[in-house]
Amino acid sequence: MTPVETPVTATAREVPESTTAAELLRRCEVLAGYSSMPDGLIERVYLSEEHRQVNALAAEWMQAAGMTTWQDAAGNQCGRLEGAVPGLPALLLGSHLDTVPAAGKYDGILGVLSAIAVVERINASGRELPFALEVVAFADEEGTRFGRALLGSRALAGTWDDAWWELHGEDGVSLRDAFTAWGLDPATIGDAARRPEELIGYLEAHIEQGPYLEDENKALGIVSSIAGARRFILTVTGKAGHSGTPYERRRDALAGAADAIIAIERLARSAQLIATVGHLQVFPDAVNVIPGKVEFSLDLRGEYDSERDRIWTVIQGLLDDICRQRRLRWDSVETHSAPAAVCSARLRGVIADGIRSTGDKRPMSLFSKAGHDAMAVAEITEIGMLFVRCEGGVSHNPEERVTEDDVAKTIDAFERAVLALAEQTDAPAPVGQTDAPAPAVQTEQGL
Amino acid sequence: MTPVETPVTATAREVPESTTAAELLRRCEVLAGYSSMPDGLIERVYLSEEHRQVNALAAEWMQAAGMTTWQDAAGNQCGRLEGAVPGLPALLLGSHLDTVPAAGKYDGILGVLSAIAVVERINASGRELPFALEVVAFADEEGTRFGRALLGSRALAGTWDDAWWELHGEDGVSLRDAFTAWGLDPATIGDAARRPEELIGYLEAHIEQGPYLEDENKALGIVSSIAGARRFILTVTGKAGHSGTPYERRRDALAGAADAIIAIERLARSAQLIATVGHLQVFPDAVNVIPGKVEFSLDLRGEYDSERDRIWTVIQGLLDDICRQRRLRWDSVETHSAPAAVCSARLRGVIADGIRSTGDKRPMSLFSKAGHDAMAVAEITEIGMLFVRCEGGVSHNPEERVTEDDVAKTIDAFERAVLALAEQTDAPAPVGQTDAPAPAVQTEQGL
Repeated sequence: MTPVETPVTATAREVPESTTAAELLRRCEVLAGYSSMPDGLIERVYLSEEHRQVNALAAEWMQAAGMTTWQDAAGNQCGRLEGAVPGLPALLLGSHLDTVPAAGKYDGILGVLSAIAVVERINASGRELPFALEVVAFADEEGTRFGRALLGSRALAGTWDDAWWELHGEDGVSLRDAFTAWGLDPATIGDAARRPEELIGYLEAHIEQGPYLEDENKALGIVSSIAGARRFILTVTGKAGHSGTPYERRRDALAGAADAIIAIERLARSAQLIATVGHLQVFPDAVNVIPGKVEFSLDLRGEYDSERDRIWTVIQGLLDDICRQRRLRWDSVETHSAPAAVCSARLRGVIADGIRSTGDKRPMSLFSKAGHDAMAVAEITEIGMLFVRCEGGVSHNPEERVTEDDVAKTIDAFERAVLALAEQTDAPAPVGQTDAPAPAVQTEQGL
Repeated sequence: MTPVETPVTATAREVPESTTAAELLRRCEVLAGYSSMPDGLIERVYLSEEHRQVNALAAEWMQAAGMTTWQDAAGNQCGRLEGAVPGLPALLLGSHLDTVPAAGKYDGILGVLSAIAVVERINASGRELPFALEVVAFADEEGTRFGRALLGSRALAGTWDDAWWELHGEDGVSLRDAFTAWGLDPATIGDAARRPEELIGYLEAHIEQGPYLEDENKALGIVSSIAGARRFILTVTGKAGHSGTPYERRRDALAGAADAIIAIERLARSAQLIATVGHLQVFPDAVNVIPGKVEFSLDLRGEYDSERDRIWTVIQGLLDDICRQRRLRWDSVETHSAPAAVCSARLRGVIADGIRSTGDKRPMSLFSKAGHDAMAVAEITEIGMLFVRCEGGVSHNPEERVTEDDVAKTIDAFERAVLALAEQTDAPAPVGQTDAPAPAVQTEQGL
C-alpha cells in the first residue's frame, strides 16, 4: 500500500480516461436512454426491462474497472475488487439506478458511477487495500413501482419483509409475480443479505436535495445523518353525487382532502418538519360528480424521529376534526417507516478528508432531508455519505443539473475518502470462508 | 280525440302491463347490465359498444309501444308515433341513456323509459292527438367520454360545434375517429338537427338532484328553469422536486390547488352558487415527488348567469393571489358554457296538471341546479320538465333510488301532461313535406 503524502486532485494528475467527470456524465446520458416514459422523460422501475438493461451496462463498466460482477438475489447489480488478499471484508460503495417518474439523470446514478470510477482508479493505481471494495447498484430505492422504498438495500441488509410479496403495482402485478417473471426466485431472497462481519462500512455519494451547498457556494458536503421518513396512504371517504347537489347535502371527499393538505402543510412548517403529498387520486374522477373518495400519500420526515411521530399524532386529530365537520371518514395505512440514520464519526472523518483534498478546507456538514439506501445499510454496518451540489437543489425532476467540475471533485473526494479509510485500517484476515481465519477487528455490531 | 273529464290515475284504471312502474323498474335493471365497468358498477359512454346495445333495446321497446324507430346522425335513438294525420309537428319526449362512471340506474334512464311508456299508453288507448309524439333517447348528456356535455341534444338542436371533432377521450381516440368507428359519418351530423317548425315542444322527466322534493314530502315537482353551468379545466403549474426539498424552495402545485379548492368552495357558498371540483390529476403523482403540475375541473352553476359569471371573475383573482404567494402559474380552458334555460309557462302548466292528476293538489315548483338535455333543446323549441323524488337527492352514485310508487305517479303525470297539451292544441296541418300545407300555429321562434 502506498500512502498518499500530499493529497493531489485528479485534475492535476493522471487518471484513467474512463474515470473522468466527462466520461461519468456521458454514462449518465447513456443510462437516461433506458426509460419506460416517452418524450425523453426518464422512468426506470424495479424489475422492469430497463432495470435489466442498466444492470447489464453497470456490470460491463464494473468489469472494465477490474471487478468481478454478479446480480444478487434481489436484482441488485454488484461488483467486487479484492483487497491485499482475497476474501477480505468489503467496503461497500453504492447508490441506486432506479428512478421516480419524470426523473433527473443524477439522483442515485451519480453515486453508482462515481463508485465504479473510484474502484477503477484504485485498481489502475495498483494499490493494495486492507479490505475489498464492492460496488452495489441498488435496484429499488425510490419505491416507484410497489409503493415501498429501499427494497434493494433492505434485501442487502437482511430486513426484507415477506409481507411485501403481496404488494401490487399500478399494473396489477404483485411483487412476487414480478420477481418471478424477471427471473428471480422469491425463495432465495435471503441470499441477498450480507453479514455484518463481511463488511467494513458503506459509503455513498449522492446529489444534495438542497440547495444548502449551493447557498454556501460549496461543491461537496458531509452528511451528518439522514432523516427518517414515515409514509402513509390516507383515504378520505364521502359520498359521490351529482354536481348539482346543494352544499348542505354534500359529503365531498376532495374538499376534505384539500382541507387536510393545507392543514398538514401548516403544521409541518411550524414544527420544522417536511410533509409531502405527492400522490392523489380522486374517485370517480368526473367533471360533474362530487368526489366520493380521495386517496393520497403523506411523506413525513424530520431530523428527530420523536418530533415526527408527535406531529403524526397531531395530524390524525386534524383529520378527525375535518372529517367530523364534513361528514367524511378517513383511514390510513403506513407504507414505510425508517428511523433517522446517523453517519459514523469515522466515515464522516474520511469524507471530510476527501473534501479537503479538493481544496475546500472547511467542509460543510449537512443533515439529509431525503432518504437514501444508506439508511437501510445502516442496519448492518456503519455508513457515510458525501453530498454533491446540484442546481437549485432540484431533484426528482428532468431539470436536475450537476456541473462537470463538481463531478470531478466528487470522484476525487470519494477516492481520497476510501484511501484515507485504508490508511486507518489494520489489515484484517479474510472472512466468510470456512478455511479462512476468523475476522480480526469486527465487533458484534459489525463495526 | 277523447277529452279526459276527470283525471283518473293509472293505479285506478287499466293500463298495458308493459307501461307499469314495475315493468319500468325492471327495464332500468336490464339497462344497468350494459356497462364498461366491472363489479356491477355502471358506466356507459358515448359511441361505446354499450351505447349500441342500449339503443337497440330502446328501439325494441319503442317499436313495441307502436313507434317507428331510427337512429339519428349523432347516434341518438328516436321513435315516432304519428298523430291524427301523418306528418304533424311532434311533441318530443326524452332524456338520455349515457351515464357517468359508477352511475346510478335512473339518471336519464327514467326519463327515456317513462316517455316510451306514455307513448305506449296513448297508442293503446286509440286516442288521436293533434301532434305526433316522438321519443328521443339522447346518446350523450353527461359528457363522460369527451369532456363536453349534451353532445346528443346539441346535435338535435343544430348547435353542434365542428371544433368538437378534435376532442379526445382518455383512451386517446378523437370524437371524429370514434364517430367513424361506431359507424356514423361526421359529414352528415347536420342531419340530426331538427327544425323548429317540426316541433311542438319538449317534455322531460328526470330524477331530482335534490332533495327538496323529499324534504317537502312530494313525489313530483315542476321545473321552473335549469341553471346554466360553466365548466373549466384549470392547470396549476409549479415545479416537481424531491420530497426532501425544504419549504422555502418548494413550488408545490397540489398545495396551490388545495388552496384554490377551499377558496372556491367558500366563495361559491357565500354567493349561493355551486362549484364542484370533480376531476383532479397530479403530475408526476409519486409518493416522494412534490407535484409539479395539477389539473382539475371546475363546474360552476347558479340560478342567475350574471352572478355565476361575476363569481368566475372573482375566482380568477383568487387564483392569481394563491399562485403569486406560492410561486405557481395557472391557466384555464372553458370546456362548457350554457345559459340558464327557462321552462315555458305553457309546458309548466301542463306538467302542473299532470302532477295534480296524481293527487298532489299544490304542485311544487323547483329550480334545477343540474343541467339536462332540455337546456340544449331549448334553443329550438319550448321546454318543460317534471322532477321525480329520489332518495336523499342522491344521483351520479350507485345508491340512486326511486320508489315504485313515485315511478307510477311519474308515468301517470307525464301521460296527463301530454294529454292536457293535446287538449289545448288546435289540430295543425302536417309540416316538413313538400306536398303538405304550411304549418299553422308555429311562430318564427318555433313556438
